[in-house]
Amino acid sequence: MSQLTDKELALLKETVLHAQTFAYCPYSKFRVGCALLAQSGKVYTGCNVENAAYPAGICAERTAITKAVSEGDTAFKAIAVITDSPSCSSPCGVCRQVIREFAGANTAVDPVSGNPLRLQLPVIMFNNTASKSLVRTIDQLLPHSFGPEDLSDAAAV
Amino acid sequence: MSQLTDKELALLKETVLHAQTFAYCPYSKFRVGCALLAQSGKVYTGCNVENAAYPAGICAERTAITKAVSEGDTAFKAIAVITDSPSCSSPCGVCRQVIREFAGANTAVDPVSGNPLRLQLPVIMFNNTASKSLVRTIDQLLPHSFGPEDLSDAAAV
Amino acid sequence: MSQLTDKELALLKETVLHAQTFAYCPYSKFRVGCALLAQSGKVYTGCNVENAAYPAGICAERTAITKAVSEGDTAFKAIAVITDSPSCSSPCGVCRQVIREFAGANTAVDPVSGNPLRLQLPVIMFNNTASKSLVRTIDQLLPHSFGPEDLSDAAAV
Amino acid sequence: MSQLTDKELALLKETVLHAQTFAYCPYSKFRVGCALLAQSGKVYTGCNVENAAYPAGICAERTAITKAVSEGDTAFKAIAVITDSPSCSSPCGVCRQVIREFAGANTAVDPVSGNPLRLQLPVIMFNNTASKSLVRTIDQLLPHSFGPEDLSDAAAV
Ligand SMILES: [Zn+2]
Ligand SMILES: [Zn+2]
Ligand SMILES: [Zn+2]
Ligand SMILES: [Zn+2]
Repeated sequence: MSQLTDKELALLKETVLHAQTFAYCPYSKFRVGCALLAQSGKVYTGCNVENAAYPAGICAERTAITKAVSEGDTAFKAIAVITDSPSCSSPCGVCRQVIREFAGANTAVDPVSGNPLRLQLPVIMFNNTASKSLVRTIDQLLPHSFGPEDLSDAAAV
Repeated sequence: MSQLTDKELALLKETVLHAQTFAYCPYSKFRVGCALLAQSGKVYTGCNVENAAYPAGICAERTAITKAVSEGDTAFKAIAVITDSPSCSSPCGVCRQVIREFAGANTAVDPVSGNPLRLQLPVIMFNNTASKSLVRTIDQLLPHSFGPEDLSDAAAV
Repeated sequence: MSQLTDKELALLKETVLHAQTFAYCPYSKFRVGCALLAQSGKVYTGCNVENAAYPAGICAERTAITKAVSEGDTAFKAIAVITDSPSCSSPCGVCRQVIREFAGANTAVDPVSGNPLRLQLPVIMFNNTASKSLVRTIDQLLPHSFGPEDLSDAAAV
Repeated sequence: MSQLTDKELALLKETVLHAQTFAYCPYSKFRVGCALLAQSGKVYTGCNVENAAYPAGICAERTAITKAVSEGDTAFKAIAVITDSPSCSSPCGVCRQVIREFAGANTAVDPVSGNPLRLQLPVIMFNNTASKSLVRTIDQLLPHSFGPEDLSDAAAV
């Protein structure tokens, strides 16, 4: 997992708490905030944006990622999320799939150790007060994932 | 339909063309750009952000709307969209549903005429060169829509 | 709009009421049922299937349509829907988009009159007791829709 | 992981191959089939049902699950999937989230050993010829998942 500096972690913590305040969640009353740190150094925020037709809602993590992509940032250092739960809630499967699309190629290697860098983007999950956090790579949260390679492997058959 | 100034229209046209350049669409190769004008005067951009798992992709319009909501803007003057099609392509049903959530209450009335302002947010659809456009209100694009009222009506039974 | 016989309408009404009883909606408590009449004469049912991650839920209409397609039926005569609302609630935008995909080609014409049969699939919306209904074609519910033609027009540029 | 009999495995293998033939995938050309074995003994099939608006498409696994739920089956023994890829492709994150909703409570225990039965529903992933398969529990594919508990924990704060 790529290392984050204490300053970067503090920035993500402060940012998720602020991002969460914009949550539009009249249906679940479950406020989610997200902060996405791009390789460029820019931080993108997201909140959940629900809909009366529940499946048309969009999560905080996907709000942050589409925002970043739409502004030219497609490579990321870390993504942090906070919810109203006292435990460290994790991104849903939809968001894990979207994070995974931008988590790097399966074939990347660490330039120093030569070890494979398999989808190592860290996902930082805060509890509701941001007093605790849990960190997992996207590969740990969505192991044996379905990705671009699956489509191209099939096309090559 | 609320009137847009020439300056606002020109701004939306210029902005969708730029927004479209950020499209992440390796699967469809169909680039979509969006520009969303908030009542605050701020313009939010969006592009489509596709996924190897096609249903996990997000459209340009929803990128722009979630971006606005996540930054505190939830009231809008107009939304514009452009695609790679030579005709004036329209938002998909998913996006129409999301636009509708933020298009105002069904009970709003025009302060001058007293006429109902039923979901009158204008949707401006440009052709691929932005030389032509088609304008419809969200009520015209998603008539007899499903909205927050449907859920509360049911709860009141 | 294609004509339905009284017998077909009665069958759809009876079927939506039964389909609704299977709704899995612990989050919204809003039960939706669907009945889809295929050209083959077979009737497919659907209910909403919600998810703790709200956007991962699936509506009744899409349940019925995917069920039909997965069993080889892709041409339809009518789709009916019922909810817990005392008014005749309509399908959300996501479902309208999915219905539209299977509502026929824009170029079809009535063999007798020669008039265009533009996406004329009827959508029958019942109120909660099925004592009232409202009928609209999918073209009326999703006018100027985004469809397969938009993608192929762009590819031809 | 719950044990499947050879007969059940053979049934799932035969069923996914057949289910895949119904795939509606004019956009990806990537055919996916699914077979879902309910505790009741009934087998439900699914295929991917794509849409010109890519995000409105639905995967094979979700087709099978919504079909089962809409017919009264909500407890499952196993889910199998096949794609056009020569490797054993896995369900996308959206489908993992939907499978997880019906994979049982986190508090269930094995009646014999007393060990926790944490979301042990087996997911069987076949390669394109069904000559190979990979099996993982849904907890292995979506570890530390977001589920109903997260919403109720927050409500209890
Ligand atoms: Zn999510
Ligand atoms: Zn869309
Ligand atoms: Zn719907
Ligand atoms: Zn899937």
